[in-house]
Amino acid sequence: MEKLCFGIDIGGTTVKLGLFTDKGELVDKWEIPTRKENSGSYILGDVAKSLEHKISERKLDKSQIVGIGAGVPGPVTGDGTVIECVNLGWSIINVANELKALTGFEAKVGNDANVAALGEMWQGGGKGYNSIVMVTLGTGVGGGVIVDGEIITGSNGAAGEVGHILVNYEEKEKCNCGKTGCLEQFASATGIVKEAKRLLSKSAEPSKLRDFDYLSAKSIFDCAKENDELALELVEQLGRYLGIALSHVAAVVDPQAFVIGGGVSKAGSILTDGIKKYYNQYVMLALKNKEFRLAELGNDAGIFGCARLILGH
Amino acid sequence: MEKLCFGIDIGGTTVKLGLFTDKGELVDKWEIPTRKENSGSYILGDVAKSLEHKISERKLDKSQIVGIGAGVPGPVTGDGTVIECVNLGWSIINVANELKALTGFEAKVGNDANVAALGEMWQGGGKGYNSIVMVTLGTGVGGGVIVDGEIITGSNGAAGEVGHILVNYEEKEKCNCGKTGCLEQFASATGIVKEAKRLLSKSAEPSKLRDFDYLSAKSIFDCAKENDELALELVEQLGRYLGIALSHVAAVVDPQAFVIGGGVSKAGSILTDGIKKYYNQYVMLALKNKEFRLAELGNDAGIFGCARLILGH
Repeated sequence: MEKLCFGIDIGGTTVKLGLFTDKGELVDKWEIPTRKENSGSYILGDVAKSLEHKISERKLDKSQIVGIGAGVPGPVTGDGTVIECVNLGWSIINVANELKALTGFEAKVGNDANVAALGEMWQGGGKGYNSIVMVTLGTGVGGGVIVDGEIITGSNGAAGEVGHILVNYEEKEKCNCGKTGCLEQFASATGIVKEAKRLLSKSAEPSKLRDFDYLSAKSIFDCAKENDELALELVEQLGRYLGIALSHVAAVVDPQAFVIGGGVSKAGSILTDGIKKYYNQYVMLALKNKEFRLAELGNDAGIFGCARLILGH
Repeated sequence: MEKLCFGIDIGGTTVKLGLFTDKGELVDKWEIPTRKENSGSYILGDVAKSLEHKISERKLDKSQIVGIGAGVPGPVTGDGTVIECVNLGWSIINVANELKALTGFEAKVGNDANVAALGEMWQGGGKGYNSIVMVTLGTGVGGGVIVDGEIITGSNGAAGEVGHILVNYEEKEKCNCGKTGCLEQFASATGIVKEAKRLLSKSAEPSKLRDFDYLSAKSIFDCAKENDELALELVEQLGRYLGIALSHVAAVVDPQAFVIGGGVSKAGSILTDGIKKYYNQYVMLALKNKEFRLAELGNDAGIFGCARLILGH
């Protein structure tokens, strides 16, 4: 009988669930809402019920299920304990033990950015490699470090927090983390737009960017592709900040490749080319000419990585 | 019969050798010169002869020896291959296979800075931890990253090259690596003295540092401890550069502790206090308040780490 596993990506709004074969094929995927009431105490019970329902709907035998992998939006220690997860309302909780108690299945738990990196390594933009660093450029900037096929979790679950690497010593505005000059302040979707507004207000140059009522990271890349000078300057600066941060990352773990994901990565090669240019300028010879790939799994990276937590061992 | 192993730290001038029990006690240590003639082709043969001699001198039974660990001053891949080792005259060579062929013992090989980090974790300043980053402040700045008791080697053997992290965007002089603004240019013994000379030439302030015919990193720390203003300024700047670089390192691997080694680390707590101050300013909350320890094994860190390569598995 075919062996299967579940990948469960628990987000602040929805829980994404996937049923995978042990070869890594996604057989079925679905979502349930994340109920955050009562300090998030319904979430894992809802997940267990949804799995139970899927098992009976597809007439699966419980012995086929080799385990559950789960991703959560917060730091997770090696044994599956979440210390605090503001987005879900959780304080300290061992998610792996809870899931096992609720479902009877073996469970492994990781941080959402880390499991997304694992998913991209396994079946996405990092396929073919076993040591990658993924950077997710979305509302914020997240990251995940995979070495020899394993997530580097960190002693406080804070490894791979590349969004909070210092890249600008002069910045005065504060990052969400409380520091100043973090990569996230310049390379997140929000940060890119903020920088555009700054540049537009201090420059007198004409730019198509001035015609937008609502500026987005996408509009900036679109204008850059049409050779708008100010937009090109912004994309150049973005490449420089990311190139600097990833040069630091490379000097620590020397990965085979970088995978760039998140909404901002839809810009494509104009983004990765800009990063490469500065990255190669800021690293020593032994670290030059790494692969820079685009993420491929989109919102499914999490459930793939969750499944891999179980199937990789 | 007691199990034993050899730790062999191959340097550009001497090879340090140690005989260890499987509990990690150093039973005997000695040195032989590194013969670099003929592209370093005598080195491993000399090592094999020296081990043979030690085995007969101490009347050991070869079956007692569980293996050999070796450290070399250059990048080493996971299978023990050295791509290039300028200091020894070697081009591509699988050191693990060569040592096994010459001695009959199982052999493992690592980069010298990485094995020193492993040694300090095992029996030195990082004892009690299993995830540390060691930074060696000597003629250059080296580093080693240990996660869950294992060296992170990197895909090109260049993980842990913290000396070549960019910390100063304005620097015009070139680092030995060909880039500009590397940590090594400011935090190596050479870099510290170079910065002192710069400051002395641009400042008119009186300073005891002006009385030295030959300035050394030690003299700068000594003057700082006597509250010499310019010396204090130099120590402050050193702490800032190291704090910045280690904040980047922490965001990637989130170690339990940092271990500071090399000749410069003899300065003691005045150095680690300075690093801590800036480190805590540049990291996010989850990464604050790490331990900063001083290395304890000195020149023996390498042979300890080499032994651990064999005994840790």
